[in-house]
Amino acid sequence: MASEKTSVVIFGASGDLARRKLIPALFELYRKGRLPADTRVVGFARSDFSDDAFRDYVSEQARDLAGVDDASSDWRTFLRHVHYQHGSLSARGDLIKLRHKLVEVEGGDPNANRLFYLSIAPKLFEDTVMGLATSGLAAETGGWRRLVVEKPFGRDLKSAQELNASLLRVFREDQVYRIDHYLGKETVQNLLVFRFGNAIFEPVWNRNYVDNVQITVAESVDLAGRAGYYDNTGATRDMLQNHLLQLVALVAMEPPPNSEPETLRNMRVETLKAIRRWSPDGVRQHAVRGRYRGYAGEPGVAADSATATYVAVRLFIDNWRWEGVPFYVRTGKAMARKESEIVVQFKRPPQHIFEGSGAQPNVLSFCLQPDEGALLRFSAKVPDQGMATRPVDMAFHYGAAFPGEPIPDAYERLLQDAIEGDPSLFIRSDQIEESWRIVEPLLEGASPAPLRAYERGSWGPDAADALLAQRNHAWLRVCGHGEASD
Amino acid sequence: MASEKTSVVIFGASGDLARRKLIPALFELYRKGRLPADTRVVGFARSDFSDDAFRDYVSEQARDLAGVDDASSDWRTFLRHVHYQHGSLSARGDLIKLRHKLVEVEGGDPNANRLFYLSIAPKLFEDTVMGLATSGLAAETGGWRRLVVEKPFGRDLKSAQELNASLLRVFREDQVYRIDHYLGKETVQNLLVFRFGNAIFEPVWNRNYVDNVQITVAESVDLAGRAGYYDNTGATRDMLQNHLLQLVALVAMEPPPNSEPETLRNMRVETLKAIRRWSPDGVRQHAVRGRYRGYAGEPGVAADSATATYVAVRLFIDNWRWEGVPFYVRTGKAMARKESEIVVQFKRPPQHIFEGSGAQPNVLSFCLQPDEGALLRFSAKVPDQGMATRPVDMAFHYGAAFPGEPIPDAYERLLQDAIEGDPSLFIRSDQIEESWRIVEPLLEGASPAPLRAYERGSWGPDAADALLAQRNHAWLRVCGHGEASD
Repeated sequence: MASEKTSVVIFGASGDLARRKLIPALFELYRKGRLPADTRVVGFARSDFSDDAFRDYVSEQARDLAGVDDASSDWRTFLRHVHYQHGSLSARGDLIKLRHKLVEVEGGDPNANRLFYLSIAPKLFEDTVMGLATSGLAAETGGWRRLVVEKPFGRDLKSAQELNASLLRVFREDQVYRIDHYLGKETVQNLLVFRFGNAIFEPVWNRNYVDNVQITVAESVDLAGRAGYYDNTGATRDMLQNHLLQLVALVAMEPPPNSEPETLRNMRVETLKAIRRWSPDGVRQHAVRGRYRGYAGEPGVAADSATATYVAVRLFIDNWRWEGVPFYVRTGKAMARKESEIVVQFKRPPQHIFEGSGAQPNVLSFCLQPDEGALLRFSAKVPDQGMATRPVDMAFHYGAAFPGEPIPDAYERLLQDAIEGDPSLFIRSDQIEESWRIVEPLLEGASPAPLRAYERGSWGPDAADALLAQRNHAWLRVCGHGEASD
Repeated sequence: MASEKTSVVIFGASGDLARRKLIPALFELYRKGRLPADTRVVGFARSDFSDDAFRDYVSEQARDLAGVDDASSDWRTFLRHVHYQHGSLSARGDLIKLRHKLVEVEGGDPNANRLFYLSIAPKLFEDTVMGLATSGLAAETGGWRRLVVEKPFGRDLKSAQELNASLLRVFREDQVYRIDHYLGKETVQNLLVFRFGNAIFEPVWNRNYVDNVQITVAESVDLAGRAGYYDNTGATRDMLQNHLLQLVALVAMEPPPNSEPETLRNMRVETLKAIRRWSPDGVRQHAVRGRYRGYAGEPGVAADSATATYVAVRLFIDNWRWEGVPFYVRTGKAMARKESEIVVQFKRPPQHIFEGSGAQPNVLSFCLQPDEGALLRFSAKVPDQGMATRPVDMAFHYGAAFPGEPIPDAYERLLQDAIEGDPSLFIRSDQIEESWRIVEPLLEGASPAPLRAYERGSWGPDAADALLAQRNHAWLRVCGHGEASD
């Protein structure tokens, strides 16, 4: 029988992600009674904390960064399950000390389970994983061993393949949980429920009825203060390769015949595999790279930087369902609004019945943020105007539909799934590699797509509007708007 | 060129319909500039009014019954176009006087048009129409002549056929405008816009996706004070034969290839023709007749009355689109709420993906009253509960979607269409006869369906619930309800 003893080991325990997301998420899971009975959280980092000093530190951080009531009895009880070991990831001796610490908090139970969470700089991934092996931390003595890896997962196809190979020298694929926190978002999972938990949408979810799909993840913040890091990344690596392609996969995937994790992962990866690859000409034709005015002057930006802060692409999915339907995908910094939505624009109805009344195409929008929900735009009869029609909206708002049932942070779900051994919402190695194959022609240095300037607070370069106008489309912003306008 | 001179002649000008609906509707059309420039309204009834006395009378009535501001300059100007002729419908001499009156208000223009509106007791229809012929009123001297006939149009198939024959001895079919005011309702016309002005509903509007359709027109008023009239009518004649079968036709009809009036009428009548007819056994199996407790004691109810105040039926439409899909249709007096809605319940989605989470069938509801609009019920992910789903609603409310654009009374649209010569929303003789063929086995005296008692303020007899339960269905009330319950 599997042990209830479970150690969640956070490498990089004093880092931003651990303080803002991981510890608060683990606390929420604890508070809701969703962790195995004897779960221990063990932080590992360079700072020289005792268990108690680390507890004081995370209490303060959880209070300030995540709004946790650190005086509550729940939190005080949770803290008793929090431990710490200081050391260096590259020092084998320190990892052996960590192993002793784990044996101690596990009470020497050889069947205790261990989840290793790599919340560390990506350049340390490979050495750390090797250290997990050589220190004996990863050895399966009875309980399970799992590895959670945060993005970025590689910088391109080759480095991702190398990283996969390194991880798989120590862990089996089924032990590796590659995180894309977008998959942990409620609104993103609701895409699956919406598509496959309802019988009326799937029949029109294909090239016969869908005219185009638009996915926007817009951020209003610019890169002031973070350009030094970002200049080495860019919009394609930061957002498109991971989050946006995940959304494409969920919107476009075939209905899974069952809910087995590998089935869901197969459906996603097969969708990505069907995305048409670009020739150099294709990139120029189907992609727009942009950079907001002023980026080059940010501290830390290289003089010859070619980094894009915005990218928009037109993808085609060459399968039976989607052939010929453009998927427009865009993301950018310093844009007009922080707004993420997925818009499915359907074909026009036949125009011969309500002549001159101009029936518009139906639009279905999934609002990921800020107002989580969904919206269906349809034509209704305008009162007292013959058979004139006008687009009106039916809306669903999560907050209104589920009062008193707040949307949890994505990390809660993902940590719970990793602990429970459900990899559905994690990225398998083949999907990671497939997504790099798709975006490689857009990467800095390699891309034939020119870099276009756009104004801060705009919706990106003009060329991105032209990209849609080529086929008589226009970017739609539907969520939170009475009117279909950009 | 057609003359702008148009006389709207209301037979039964001092009656309830004329005072409550027709005169106020004509005034609204006048006020909105939708009447031909030189339109005259000529009332005809027994009461001995002068033009001015009739104007005073309708002013008072319009103010009290329809909320018209009878001191407004619009109303005062409109009144100048209102005239009156007293007389008896059965006296040929009086109809000749009416003809002289018309010639007078038409300024002797032989090209003036005339709309004759029969707002009179049905037993007078045939004589009056004959009088229109013999008095010369109906003679086409240059302008058009049209006849508007109010319900009831016959008491059964035979009487309806006879009435049609009588009318068609004097008028051509294209001159006869049989009114069912439900077709003039905005929410009812919106059924057509919803179905054919949007591309995403039609693909699922058939037996492959629809599980059942439910149409409810419930009235909360009982028949106190009106039972003497009603006892000779009953729910089948009063509501089912006309209004409810119209709704069935609009929900179920094939998409019209164009918007020509005869095309729309053909689509409706073909739908009714495809409704499966009942054997006597079939009536007992598919119909429930009910009467609220206490009805028999109302003044005017015959001692041996077999009149139903409630009727519910299960119809099947034996065509390619609808074979096997039950259409449940019910109407009644003294019910729990005044509420009219059309509910389309779709089939369940496949249940293998979200096991145990119980994805419910989608429901689309058209709310005719009291809260005009539409509602789509679908499954969404419950926050923070794994992949559990729960039905949520997207709603569209006319009032909220079109603020400042009030919904006009049905008679406005119908009068305007009749004056403009558009018979789309009027009932052709073949449709009238077809609808009688469908309901004949339910008519009082002829029906093998037993009369079931139900409580005032209930939702009808238990047998009506059992009718649906036979196929694991239940009556749904969706509009204005958070929950799908009856």
